[in-house]
Amino acid sequence: MGTPWDELTLTFSRTSMFPFFDIAHYVVSVMALKQQPGAAAVAWQNPLSSWFTAMLHCFGGGILSCILLAEPPLRFLTNHTHILLASSIWYIIFFCPCDLVSQGYSYLPVQLLAAGMKEVTRTWKIVGGVTHANSYYKNGWLVMIAIGWARGAGGSIITTFEQLVKGDWKPKGDEWLKMSHTAKITLLGSVMFTFQHTDHLGISKHNLMFLYTIFLVTIKVTMMITKSPLVPLAPLEDILSRMLFGWQQQIPSCEKKTETRPASNGPCSSASEAPVDAADDAKKKYAED
Amino acid sequence: MGTPWDELTLTFSRTSMFPFFDIAHYVVSVMALKQQPGAAAVAWQNPLSSWFTAMLHCFGGGILSCILLAEPPLRFLTNHTHILLASSIWYIIFFCPCDLVSQGYSYLPVQLLAAGMKEVTRTWKIVGGVTHANSYYKNGWLVMIAIGWARGAGGSIITTFEQLVKGDWKPKGDEWLKMSHTAKITLLGSVMFTFQHTDHLGISKHNLMFLYTIFLVTIKVTMMITKSPLVPLAPLEDILSRMLFGWQQQIPSCEKKTETRPASNGPCSSASEAPVDAADDAKKKYAED
Amino acid sequence: MGTPWDELTLTFSRTSMFPFFDIAHYVVSVMALKQQPGAAAVAWQNPLSSWFTAMLHCFGGGILSCILLAEPPLRFLTNHTHILLASSIWYIIFFCPCDLVSQGYSYLPVQLLAAGMKEVTRTWKIVGGVTHANSYYKNGWLVMIAIGWARGAGGSIITTFEQLVKGDWKPKGDEWLKMSHTAKITLLGSVMFTFQHTDHLGISKHNLMFLYTIFLVTIKVTMMITKSPLVPLAPLEDILSRMLFGWQQQIPSCEKKTETRPASNGPCSSASEAPVDAADDAKKKYAED
Repeated sequence: MGTPWDELTLTFSRTSMFPFFDIAHYVVSVMALKQQPGAAAVAWQNPLSSWFTAMLHCFGGGILSCILLAEPPLRFLTNHTHILLASSIWYIIFFCPCDLVSQGYSYLPVQLLAAGMKEVTRTWKIVGGVTHANSYYKNGWLVMIAIGWARGAGGSIITTFEQLVKGDWKPKGDEWLKMSHTAKITLLGSVMFTFQHTDHLGISKHNLMFLYTIFLVTIKVTMMITKSPLVPLAPLEDILSRMLFGWQQQIPSCEKKTETRPASNGPCSSASEAPVDAADDAKKKYAED
Repeated sequence: MGTPWDELTLTFSRTSMFPFFDIAHYVVSVMALKQQPGAAAVAWQNPLSSWFTAMLHCFGGGILSCILLAEPPLRFLTNHTHILLASSIWYIIFFCPCDLVSQGYSYLPVQLLAAGMKEVTRTWKIVGGVTHANSYYKNGWLVMIAIGWARGAGGSIITTFEQLVKGDWKPKGDEWLKMSHTAKITLLGSVMFTFQHTDHLGISKHNLMFLYTIFLVTIKVTMMITKSPLVPLAPLEDILSRMLFGWQQQIPSCEKKTETRPASNGPCSSASEAPVDAADDAKKKYAED
Repeated sequence: MGTPWDELTLTFSRTSMFPFFDIAHYVVSVMALKQQPGAAAVAWQNPLSSWFTAMLHCFGGGILSCILLAEPPLRFLTNHTHILLASSIWYIIFFCPCDLVSQGYSYLPVQLLAAGMKEVTRTWKIVGGVTHANSYYKNGWLVMIAIGWARGAGGSIITTFEQLVKGDWKPKGDEWLKMSHTAKITLLGSVMFTFQHTDHLGISKHNLMFLYTIFLVTIKVTMMITKSPLVPLAPLEDILSRMLFGWQQQIPSCEKKTETRPASNGPCSSASEAPVDAADDAKKKYAED
């Protein structure tokens, strides 16, 4: 890697997220909230509740990582600048006359730009989470991965839980199983930055940040243009699952044993819920075909 | 303000809540619990669970503020005097032979006295919360407002969440939107005491405490006598909402746009809220595009 | 108590839980998870989610006590040895070809051994929780009892809550009322160890640990052999409830007053839920007959 490249990545890794990238993040988050059914009506009925939900959408990741590290979940309220910024964006998006913002946001290039800048903030959040967790637990690399992940992709968990409590959303049994591609990519990034932080990765942090950000933005933009759920990690997942769990699939006969086991041995009440079990079996079979 | 007035308010602001006002607070809270359908039956079937719920009703605000500040939620258990007091009141109210307490409590004057004294404790809780939050974050006036609010009116949130987890209560989508009058008034008080604490209000704390308490008690008693949900903050709310959100309502045509906008720009269908799950699924699909 | 007895109990109380007893605890917990309907299918569809659930089953008690004491809930991730141990057990149990482990576990003697060793770890957890809570609050014996209880039997609460959030489990109103025998016995043990810790019990800790463990194991094994829910604490509960709440049952006429009170005095919305109330009444009546 030559000096100009290093200079480039260093300058990039020193870019301040405030204000422009943060603004993009807030805009994307609040627009996602507004596009939920009934959100606009709620904003008119009870602005306070809508504002609170918007804050959860904007700062959810930080709140989750605070909860996981037993720090005050309200701490995000102390950064008055960010709160003011997010609040004004919420106000403009929800109450702008004739809904100009939404109209402007409905153009694809604008969405691409905003989404791309939001992805940049994701890298910064992951790095911040990993470093922050490391300040708690020197060698707790599992915690570092978890916190980096929570900061980067935890907002969706918080907002889903809020919808659950509000009753807007009824979970099905396998709802939480499907990780979104964002969550998967964030997890990958969190793992990489953690290993980089513990010097198990032979790459400097600013280089990794640059490459990972480009990776994030490329994927996001590609997914938004070609409206197909492109799965960049599919091969990786495939290899992993083949390595870890694949070799048992040579023995289908044992599968059934696995499933029928609960019915036979003792303390589980699988008899009553046999249909569910069967349904899951079927689903699994299809999923693996 | 003359010296006698100052003396009066000072003496008032130095009144100790323990034992009498706290007793009134516990009595009102436990009676509210007992008047829930089936609560008495629960107390007979499983006294421990009923006792736990009663403690949540009595100390819910403190627990919520502890959670929000990442303090041990169990800390309220360390104040043995209060626990003992609340427990004995719970025991007397639920298990007093011939239910004498409930009969005595059914007389309006008794209820008025108890409710009025409970409102007095609310002021003390708000002030305590604001001061406590200020000891964490010097200038975090948003946190101060939130903690004062949580201490003053957070009990209902805790108990609602407990009912939600217990399955006694199914939330509708707009259930959490409607703030009770108590919550609104407590929020107003929390804001006032926060600004007083940060010296943005030209009034001494004891005077504000005195006036706000009188305000609280008057409203509460009036609402209990004239069984009508008198809304003392309606004009204030009206002015605020007119100032903040009213001026868009001159443009009804945009209203529709605001409402129909989500339907048109992609991932949601505000028109058809009935199949929420379908909408969510769709959103998931599109969100990854 | 002679010297050999003291030596025996001392040696026992100094036994290290790691690795064998911990392994037994993990095996029992993960098998309990696997015997839930559909768990095996989930493990194939989304190993990460299954692994997370398994960790909750293995470390739930510690997580709950961390939450209650406002410590980082993720701290259990810092003990890499235990995580590695639990993860490999999860992997073997769920992905062992031809499901050998489950087959081996299906033999009663193996189950008895594992369950017995798991009960031993329960004693250690209770003692650890009580001591840990005491390091926070010197005289907070209520907190000590609660934390000891949470460590010993809190795993089920965490996993139930997880199922609730996942939507696998819908709570009925009286679901949380029924304490399992394990929870009751753990509560008893937590109370005893707390009083022993505060020197209100004239017995040395190692003796109490020895006797309580034998008590736990005996009950567990007996309950597993004679598949009847033997209730060792029934007499104790009976005496207690008779002492505390029994004497009112002499006056059935007052019961009705208790129940009809809510309908008559004011602020409770018992009218809408009259059927529920009536149902509860009936249930209660039968329960008391």
